[in-house]
Amino acid sequence: MMKKSVLIVAAGSGSRMNHETPKQFLRLGDQPLLMHTIRRFYDFDPTISIILVLPFAYVETWNILCARHRFPIAHQLVTGGSERFYSVKNGLGKATASGLIAIHDGVRPLVTEALIKRCYDNAARHGSAIPVLKPDESLREINGNLSKPVDREKFRLVQTPQTFDAKLIKAAYHRDFQPEFTDDAAVYEAAGYAVHLVEGDAANIKITTPVDLIIAESLMSGSKT
Amino acid sequence: MMKKSVLIVAAGSGSRMNHETPKQFLRLGDQPLLMHTIRRFYDFDPTISIILVLPFAYVETWNILCARHRFPIAHQLVTGGSERFYSVKNGLGKATASGLIAIHDGVRPLVTEALIKRCYDNAARHGSAIPVLKPDESLREINGNLSKPVDREKFRLVQTPQTFDAKLIKAAYHRDFQPEFTDDAAVYEAAGYAVHLVEGDAANIKITTPVDLIIAESLMSGSKT
Repeated sequence: MMKKSVLIVAAGSGSRMNHETPKQFLRLGDQPLLMHTIRRFYDFDPTISIILVLPFAYVETWNILCARHRFPIAHQLVTGGSERFYSVKNGLGKATASGLIAIHDGVRPLVTEALIKRCYDNAARHGSAIPVLKPDESLREINGNLSKPVDREKFRLVQTPQTFDAKLIKAAYHRDFQPEFTDDAAVYEAAGYAVHLVEGDAANIKITTPVDLIIAESLMSGSKT
Repeated sequence: MMKKSVLIVAAGSGSRMNHETPKQFLRLGDQPLLMHTIRRFYDFDPTISIILVLPFAYVETWNILCARHRFPIAHQLVTGGSERFYSVKNGLGKATASGLIAIHDGVRPLVTEALIKRCYDNAARHGSAIPVLKPDESLREINGNLSKPVDREKFRLVQTPQTFDAKLIKAAYHRDFQPEFTDDAAVYEAAGYAVHLVEGDAANIKITTPVDLIIAESLMSGSKT
């Protein structure tokens, strides 16, 4: 079996939550949201290497939270950069170049074991695995003050964990930041590699607004019953 | 004040729910989902004209449900067609040509009063109002086996109620069905009118999967507290 690592990116400052606390530290059920995210990967494979990227200003907060909650899962801390690109790059700098590495949003605490498995399995076979979903809604393209309908069947919404051959994604991140690098798949492709899409999971939501936190609470309690 | 109507489109057969019952009849809290949807418009304006489009095969079911729940809100029933286009066209055939008409998905029971008001107000001023949201996630465009990242800032996800000058949308629907008519905005534009976009609402979700139903339950109880 190939060695597995996960890079959990939680370097955001959470300004959209109308909240002082960055969203990865908000409480979901009995503990900070980020602890759920980490636990999902640990439960999938307790031998996994976990690297957590945090904003420098919140390392102390995190250490206090871990002590208070007696958080038992070992992980390596790395501090983030000014853009998501630099945060991932810092994290990959600490990752081993062998096996597979998943790169996951810290604010997606509902990722399922089935999706994690699908991503690692496909990355082992194809070099990469990017979970995507068809949009449920019509889609329009904006151009200044104008807009036009586009065929939503031709588009996919991209989730995480985006999972890669560790050697290839580390190599891909040896480049300068470009504004179009909004996710790891785009960086991987810029290095000349082809991405392999896999089916995502509607429950694997990204917590970006207070509404999302209410949704996550209910999905968490629903999944326990 | 301009006369207001709403056309609630609930003509789907709900095959994605793994359920015998079409999703608009599934229970949300204490009553069928569709009753919540209708009530949201009635609560916004008790003088509103409500036209409900149902599958022909479910008219009897709906009448039984209304009797059982003593559903008190007056509405006109119309039966649906083979495509959403024909269902809306049937409904518009019963609508008056004066004032404003909102066209709303029956399976969006969480539409808020604020969003309904925004749509009617903007349609009064601009002839149409289409609620849209920026995607939270990266977006890729698919082309056969290939895909490429696109700039999500240039795209919007489209919700309902799509709201129009009644005379113009009725005129726009005097045309033949085209496969690219996935929503009412597209039909309106095909008639040569320009659509006006307004800010949508993240809580105004479309119930298409069992996960969505869990989410809706929690958002409903959250909004009551």
